[in-house]
Amino acid sequence: MEALKQRILKDGKYLGNGILKVDNFINHQVDAGLMDACGLEFARLFADTGATRILTAEISGIAPALMAARHLNLPVVYARKSKPVTMPDTVYLTVAPSHTKGRMVELIVSPEYLARGERVIIIDDFLASGATILGLVRLAQAAGSEVVGIGTLIEKTFEGGRAALSGLGVPVHALAMIAAMDENGIRFAE
Amino acid sequence: MEALKQRILKDGKYLGNGILKVDNFINHQVDAGLMDACGLEFARLFADTGATRILTAEISGIAPALMAARHLNLPVVYARKSKPVTMPDTVYLTVAPSHTKGRMVELIVSPEYLARGERVIIIDDFLASGATILGLVRLAQAAGSEVVGIGTLIEKTFEGGRAALSGLGVPVHALAMIAAMDENGIRFAE
Repeated sequence: MEALKQRILKDGKYLGNGILKVDNFINHQVDAGLMDACGLEFARLFADTGATRILTAEISGIAPALMAARHLNLPVVYARKSKPVTMPDTVYLTVAPSHTKGRMVELIVSPEYLARGERVIIIDDFLASGATILGLVRLAQAAGSEVVGIGTLIEKTFEGGRAALSGLGVPVHALAMIAAMDENGIRFAE
Repeated sequence: MEALKQRILKDGKYLGNGILKVDNFINHQVDAGLMDACGLEFARLFADTGATRILTAEISGIAPALMAARHLNLPVVYARKSKPVTMPDTVYLTVAPSHTKGRMVELIVSPEYLARGERVIIIDDFLASGATILGLVRLAQAAGSEVVGIGTLIEKTFEGGRAALSGLGVPVHALAMIAAMDENGIRFAE
């Protein structure tokens, strides 16, 4: 998606160690108009999936998932990283390594909002190793839901996430695919 | 706002101890269409403030703040509760008590995205005691920004938050004001 790529080139910052800082428009300050355009693009890409629900992970997945949900007219559920007092005692919980936190984090969904037979699109900000998204896949499967599509704003193709997801046999879409990045710049995959 | 009130009556659950569970449409599963309508209403209420930025707190403030930002065509910044590796070493940080976590949480904003002279609208899901919102006010003031409005989806008028904010002299809008709630139901303020 051209608008997202241009914004990455303009405001993305390579911090070393494979980390791309996009705090200017996705991860701390959020460009609502750009996220809405990305949501519209996800809606177009996943229009034929028959999805009944969108699943994402707090915090950074919320903006693109919410906008995709708006355009697809679906509810969105975000996996929590800690269990609030409002959640029932028994939940679906998995753990996944966090790239930016350097430790394992929990992903928790209440059975109230992820039921058997749902058709789920998973949306997140980054596809890197695929570890967080595979965690969301495990939650969906634990609930007896079927994952029917996976979408991320940005993919770092050199971290192998797409291969890790290939066994699922579902469409995987990234709106900007980064093939390489270093101090000199960012190169997108075709 | 009638649509939000009706949804609270339909899907809100009183859990005791002053806690209203709205996980069905705000705090875990999110109704994107309803949040968008709430964002539009905030945009109408704050149209004349001359705001340049919206500030909220992760996680639950993100959906309404993002939708308000979309309709006002402003950037939104969400205060983080932990400092990610992408954030600079020196930040604005304050602490505020969390109602649902029963402990103090940190609220952190990078100086990159909250500058001197900004006119800030604060948006969050709940106005209860006002403690979280006052934390966001302190962050804005630390940055040399001016708070020009405060909006929340739901206010629990019996917890005194509005009085706590009155000294700021800015408009405070809640889209649904709950005057009382118990096992028998919810009563809205007029």
